[in-house]
Amino acid sequence: MNRMIFGAVLASVALGLGAQEVTSERTVSMKLANELATAAVASCTASGYNVVATVVDRSGYVKAVLRADNARPHAIDIAERKAHTAAMLGYETAKLAENIQKGITPASILNTPGFTSLLGGFPIKAGSEVIGGIGVSGAPGGHLDTACVEAAMKLAHDRLK
Amino acid sequence: MNRMIFGAVLASVALGLGAQEVTSERTVSMKLANELATAAVASCTASGYNVVATVVDRSGYVKAVLRADNARPHAIDIAERKAHTAAMLGYETAKLAENIQKGITPASILNTPGFTSLLGGFPIKAGSEVIGGIGVSGAPGGHLDTACVEAAMKLAHDRLK
Amino acid sequence: MNRMIFGAVLASVALGLGAQEVTSERTVSMKLANELATAAVASCTASGYNVVATVVDRSGYVKAVLRADNARPHAIDIAERKAHTAAMLGYETAKLAENIQKGITPASILNTPGFTSLLGGFPIKAGSEVIGGIGVSGAPGGHLDTACVEAAMKLAHDRLK
Amino acid sequence: MNRMIFGAVLASVALGLGAQEVTSERTVSMKLANELATAAVASCTASGYNVVATVVDRSGYVKAVLRADNARPHAIDIAERKAHTAAMLGYETAKLAENIQKGITPASILNTPGFTSLLGGFPIKAGSEVIGGIGVSGAPGGHLDTACVEAAMKLAHDRLK
Amino acid sequence: MNRMIFGAVLASVALGLGAQEVTSERTVSMKLANELATAAVASCTASGYNVVATVVDRSGYVKAVLRADNARPHAIDIAERKAHTAAMLGYETAKLAENIQKGITPASILNTPGFTSLLGGFPIKAGSEVIGGIGVSGAPGGHLDTACVEAAMKLAHDRLK
Amino acid sequence: MNRMIFGAVLASVALGLGAQEVTSERTVSMKLANELATAAVASCTASGYNVVATVVDRSGYVKAVLRADNARPHAIDIAERKAHTAAMLGYETAKLAENIQKGITPASILNTPGFTSLLGGFPIKAGSEVIGGIGVSGAPGGHLDTACVEAAMKLAHDRLK
Amino acid sequence: MNRMIFGAVLASVALGLGAQEVTSERTVSMKLANELATAAVASCTASGYNVVATVVDRSGYVKAVLRADNARPHAIDIAERKAHTAAMLGYETAKLAENIQKGITPASILNTPGFTSLLGGFPIKAGSEVIGGIGVSGAPGGHLDTACVEAAMKLAHDRLK
Amino acid sequence: MNRMIFGAVLASVALGLGAQEVTSERTVSMKLANELATAAVASCTASGYNVVATVVDRSGYVKAVLRADNARPHAIDIAERKAHTAAMLGYETAKLAENIQKGITPASILNTPGFTSLLGGFPIKAGSEVIGGIGVSGAPGGHLDTACVEAAMKLAHDRLK
Repeated sequence: MNRMIFGAVLASVALGLGAQEVTSERTVSMKLANELATAAVASCTASGYNVVATVVDRSGYVKAVLRADNARPHAIDIAERKAHTAAMLGYETAKLAENIQKGITPASILNTPGFTSLLGGFPIKAGSEVIGGIGVSGAPGGHLDTACVEAAMKLAHDRLK
Repeated sequence: MNRMIFGAVLASVALGLGAQEVTSERTVSMKLANELATAAVASCTASGYNVVATVVDRSGYVKAVLRADNARPHAIDIAERKAHTAAMLGYETAKLAENIQKGITPASILNTPGFTSLLGGFPIKAGSEVIGGIGVSGAPGGHLDTACVEAAMKLAHDRLK
Repeated sequence: MNRMIFGAVLASVALGLGAQEVTSERTVSMKLANELATAAVASCTASGYNVVATVVDRSGYVKAVLRADNARPHAIDIAERKAHTAAMLGYETAKLAENIQKGITPASILNTPGFTSLLGGFPIKAGSEVIGGIGVSGAPGGHLDTACVEAAMKLAHDRLK
Repeated sequence: MNRMIFGAVLASVALGLGAQEVTSERTVSMKLANELATAAVASCTASGYNVVATVVDRSGYVKAVLRADNARPHAIDIAERKAHTAAMLGYETAKLAENIQKGITPASILNTPGFTSLLGGFPIKAGSEVIGGIGVSGAPGGHLDTACVEAAMKLAHDRLK
Repeated sequence: MNRMIFGAVLASVALGLGAQEVTSERTVSMKLANELATAAVASCTASGYNVVATVVDRSGYVKAVLRADNARPHAIDIAERKAHTAAMLGYETAKLAENIQKGITPASILNTPGFTSLLGGFPIKAGSEVIGGIGVSGAPGGHLDTACVEAAMKLAHDRLK
Repeated sequence: MNRMIFGAVLASVALGLGAQEVTSERTVSMKLANELATAAVASCTASGYNVVATVVDRSGYVKAVLRADNARPHAIDIAERKAHTAAMLGYETAKLAENIQKGITPASILNTPGFTSLLGGFPIKAGSEVIGGIGVSGAPGGHLDTACVEAAMKLAHDRLK
Repeated sequence: MNRMIFGAVLASVALGLGAQEVTSERTVSMKLANELATAAVASCTASGYNVVATVVDRSGYVKAVLRADNARPHAIDIAERKAHTAAMLGYETAKLAENIQKGITPASILNTPGFTSLLGGFPIKAGSEVIGGIGVSGAPGGHLDTACVEAAMKLAHDRLK
Repeated sequence: MNRMIFGAVLASVALGLGAQEVTSERTVSMKLANELATAAVASCTASGYNVVATVVDRSGYVKAVLRADNARPHAIDIAERKAHTAAMLGYETAKLAENIQKGITPASILNTPGFTSLLGGFPIKAGSEVIGGIGVSGAPGGHLDTACVEAAMKLAHDRLK
């Protein structure tokens, strides 16, 4: 049958794929995603804030989410959008907020699905390459959400150095 | 200021990331995506069918779309869902249709956003690894859409061997 | 100003709220959610399947999500719907599938937002009270997703007894 | 069969759940929700305004809705968002509007699903704990919607003191 | 200015509108909506079921919603769709389920936004004219939801006769 | 059978419904809706603009839509939102734009589904009662859309006086 | 400035566009759309059914909608989907229903946005070319909706012959 | 059977359709769409930017999409909205941004589905007639996206003159 024969053809094609046909991309592992989300929530809990921490991969898809007890559910949506935005743009949501305020980036970029300029979203980088994003939401102020991301990243840094 | 200092810390973290922190993934290149979409539309046009051909990457996001003149717009949605489904499941949409009919897979899997069991969606593989998907829609019958994908894959196969 | 005065009034109201005005509800903690999601993913990884495990609270909102490396993103949506459905109905998604097949429950219940009858969703109970749900998706077959949930629940059981 | 055996295991797990595994949360009862919604609509009707009053629980889900005759349907959506926003943030929508105007909270927080800064949304508290929210919409001006919520809360206060 | 002058013109138009320009429609009052929703929830509570009862007007828009304590939030959506469907079609959702099963109505009617064939939705009529709908959800079985609607309607009937 | 008996009971209820149970509402007829939409499109065509004209009923649901040849499809959405907004608020979209600019109404009211402050939406009134709305879109400027609505209303006025 | 210069360049491009760059497509005029929708509603009204009639263009976008007095709003959505489906597929929705029943077309095609297999949707053709679609909804049975479309088409036929 | 007979009638109608019943519209061909998208991506790649280029037809539906390797997926959505907006309005998105800033066009036009004022969207014209649109997204700055569109249009111009 044609489809079966084609199955064989397709296998051959696959073997022949070279560098021009396939691109290799690096993305954050579940291990690191979990480590960062856990540390970010713990840091906020230690400060008395119940938050959601979300890590997304290079394509903006969720790798890890943790929601502290008593963190209100709207923070699930916000944390993911912070992480997603940072992974897409390659810089902090704080910089997006600043760029919008300065008129460098039009505010209408926020109509992009999954985008936000609320503080507390950071890219995760391997060298200069963006491999994911992290976002925290639920603390009473974006600068407090930000502090929990920074604490989590510092912890990962200390373990890895 | 703390965020600036953290910028430096973050850079260090990045450098220290090892194999456990970063996963490497292969995905279809734009070059191959374009080649396959172009060939699939051309094959259908030669047979007298005006279709849409869509190629998505490993995460299911569009890499290339081509819509022939007079192909009706609903085929844009269907072609993308065929490609997306095949990239997610790693097998043809025809097999999903068969599995649903045999009761192996519940029909309610079709409620998953971006899924369809309409014939004409195929995974794109590098060896045994799924690196994307292709879908065609618009011909009067899923087997005709399927033939155009197969023709496109055969062409790519012949060029690459 | 009136709103300030009202602030005081409102405070008093709050103090006076009795059992008829406030309901106490139990819900899964982040600690247990994380433990179950981690164990479910680990169990599937040990069997060679890359999956997503999601735990939701009593109201169906996410408490924890973990996505293994190479688990395709469509499993994020499915795992959450499995967990959500089980938390809403108070029984396994397998039982919903069975009820639909037997004609006890109409299939159109699956049009409810966030519902699925795909195997691998279980309620989390404290005694007879439903306090959340867990869902796993990504293994090649719902019975395999199910096995990972069961393994995770057994582990929690052994630790807690 | 494994699933049946597991059912027994699961039951045991449930019995063993301790304080770390289960969180207790307080939420507004239907009785109080209905009392507040009824009083808010009545207060507005007495003033000549046809409104919608909505009370949501701690998770932001509807507990009670009442729509006066001749209240236009768009007010259904707005009243729920007012109640939802106040339950999520723990303070009045008026304060959110003020915070946005002062630059304390970025306006883009209003892109969060179910959020609004229109006046007339209040949290419902048991002591200092937020257990729900109430919103009114349909009067010709947010301060008039607000007055109806305040009247309803005063009535509940007087009954309960 | 033109718009001001037009304001006057418009006023005249309004006065001149006759029977051919304006249609009079009857719709369920908030009083009856509230009475029916309250009685339906009470009937189910007396039987040990925690449910949501929703009444919609002639156009399918919510007039009253009540959710019993411990009724799960997915029942909010289902109860509204039951009420909406009955108001639109002018007969019970049970009859729609029956018509679909007999092949009189195609199942694909359930893709209409806000439609369901789950048991427990009834039209509210003034004589032969449909003036709204009521739906109940949350009891363990559509026939139990149905019984609560019937009890509520019987109560209203007894009060009104 | 119970449901059949209940059918009889329900019929009785219906007969007994009084003024407190049923509200009578006036709404724009199809005849007037069609007349206004036709005249509005014709007026714009005469001025060289290809537009969409939409009339909605009291609840904001479409009664008539006409799209001139070469009017771009985005105008379908905008015209309906103009009509809907005016029917809900009871005044012109121009007044909403003015109120937002003056700070009387918060801009976030535009997040309400189906709302817009673009010029060219007017309520349709029977005396002081709002019975529907009309919106026009597609002319190069909201004041031009507005002129076509005004022309249509003037025509209807002249016919009815 | 560069953009102005480019404006000139762009103008030249436009002038140079030949048959290979531009495709000419025929689509139903507003005049015919309005004639068909008016006749279809009138035919149903004469038979005692209050319906919605919708005509869409070749791309599936609305050209004309008319809703009879007392036609329920859900028929707006259904009529448009009937017209849209017929315009996309080029044949009646009755044939789609038949094809699905015979297994020629998979039922999952109904997940395509804007599609339905409910009876009462017809393509509008100029010779063999599909230039739009018409759909009617609201009569008690798809065959009755169908009869109104057929009556409208016969009327147009008689006028045009 | 009536429907078969009607089929014959309908065929006759089709033959009789004249200029008043059918409108002829010109739209961008797939050949030109592909040429423009390919050139736009190539121009950006040459400058070191990984972008998405999308061309839509006269009705705003996709004709061609190309996404360069490493272009982040959010650019798919933005590029299509740029192209769509330009095709609907008939001028560049830069002009829309300017009109909004000057107060000529209200910012709320951006709530129209598929609209954006981000720089990099241009209409495609055949003489003075708009036959489609093109959008590019992904470069670090809208002026850079714009340059790639202009380069692609210049190339097409040079080939066609």
